[in-house]
Amino acid sequence: MIKEIKEHRSIRNYESTPISQEVLDQLLESATRASTTGNMQLYSIVVTQDAEAKQKLGACHFNQPMIAQAPMLVTFCADMNRFSQWCAQRDAAPCYDNFLWFTNATIDTVLASQNFALAAEHEGLGVCYLGTTVYTAKSIIELLDLPKGVIPITTLVVGYPASTPPLTDRLPVRGVVHYEKYNHYTAEQIDEIWSEKEQSEETKTLLEQNKLDNLAKIFTQNRYKAADNIAISKSFFDVLVAQDFFNQK
Amino acid sequence: MIKEIKEHRSIRNYESTPISQEVLDQLLESATRASTTGNMQLYSIVVTQDAEAKQKLGACHFNQPMIAQAPMLVTFCADMNRFSQWCAQRDAAPCYDNFLWFTNATIDTVLASQNFALAAEHEGLGVCYLGTTVYTAKSIIELLDLPKGVIPITTLVVGYPASTPPLTDRLPVRGVVHYEKYNHYTAEQIDEIWSEKEQSEETKTLLEQNKLDNLAKIFTQNRYKAADNIAISKSFFDVLVAQDFFNQK
Repeated sequence: MIKEIKEHRSIRNYESTPISQEVLDQLLESATRASTTGNMQLYSIVVTQDAEAKQKLGACHFNQPMIAQAPMLVTFCADMNRFSQWCAQRDAAPCYDNFLWFTNATIDTVLASQNFALAAEHEGLGVCYLGTTVYTAKSIIELLDLPKGVIPITTLVVGYPASTPPLTDRLPVRGVVHYEKYNHYTAEQIDEIWSEKEQSEETKTLLEQNKLDNLAKIFTQNRYKAADNIAISKSFFDVLVAQDFFNQK
Repeated sequence: MIKEIKEHRSIRNYESTPISQEVLDQLLESATRASTTGNMQLYSIVVTQDAEAKQKLGACHFNQPMIAQAPMLVTFCADMNRFSQWCAQRDAAPCYDNFLWFTNATIDTVLASQNFALAAEHEGLGVCYLGTTVYTAKSIIELLDLPKGVIPITTLVVGYPASTPPLTDRLPVRGVVHYEKYNHYTAEQIDEIWSEKEQSEETKTLLEQNKLDNLAKIFTQNRYKAADNIAISKSFFDVLVAQDFFNQK
């Protein structure tokens, strides 16, 4: 298990080989065994396999080529709708249309998605998480016909790998772990934590490609620009409100 | 791997046996191998082992007896502080103090926590997620001395199990999975999805204990009451704003 966890890499090249229902059922069952708030299972898993539907949904993820290659997209959604509907049918007044339950359901959703991802890798499949889910949540809601009380949180591309890239680097473990209290980083510690990453050949190549003088600027000036961050923040929060996750009166 | 995932149960009785640093290092490294937004690792992991510190932190989790028994609490925090500090030191203007990055960092945090949990179970340890983390986020921030840009999302109790309970039930997989589009549940489908759970011996016992006539009312009237939900929603959102995750001007 630990070996498999440590072997994880995001796969961005896929074979078109379909995933059997038998294998998919294993992954879905694995997802539902994850820990969940009060055993309420506050998520829904939407499987997209139809080629046309996958293409339309792929437009919400900037039409990355891997989406056309892979046989499956799986959208993991925070879902208070199903539980609230059950309560209403049982004459029990639900009160889950607020930010606490957005948070609880989001945690449930990601726990389920990670079980799914690890089970998929165990079955020889590759996966890639798509952060674009949050950027285009409104369009995804329309395409998947999600009702109020449901909001997409993350998406997995799933398929058999056409190629397996090397492991990506990580900050040293000591850089993200704290004992007893938070370690308020000194400037020297920050330098030390990032030093290996900043000196890697990969970074040197990136800096040449991006014509920038350090790695941090690639993040702030190219990958995640301030104006985009603010615009997406607002649009995703608006979607959250529209989907009934912020009725706090 | 899949077998282990399917064997997960939350452990609520622990031996006091300590966890070796060697084992802990395996779990921490497993956590850092999880997928992460742009390979930014937007989380911090705070390990609490000191008995007095564990007792104080335990008060934020309603002093559940398992917290005193188990040798370790691990608080998983969404962290934009470390990355922003690095950017600032590199003359790259960070803009991560907004709701988009609360969401991205929360997803990163939960992916890391689930890797940690599964690796722990692989090592023969038991875990239990504490949803109370969100309820008392403000007190946890004070106790762990978390700076702005950091907010606790979830906590794991970790230790060797003193007893292993039976697997808890789940809704049938078909009840939480949708193909191509969201299945707008009919009343009959909701009844069918919950029927096994509602008819179980466990539910009958719960109804007698709670003196209520159906399971849904146990959730709405006892476990998660409307007034509490609203109060916690507001307090957690206030904490999020205070920790600089909502500067969207």
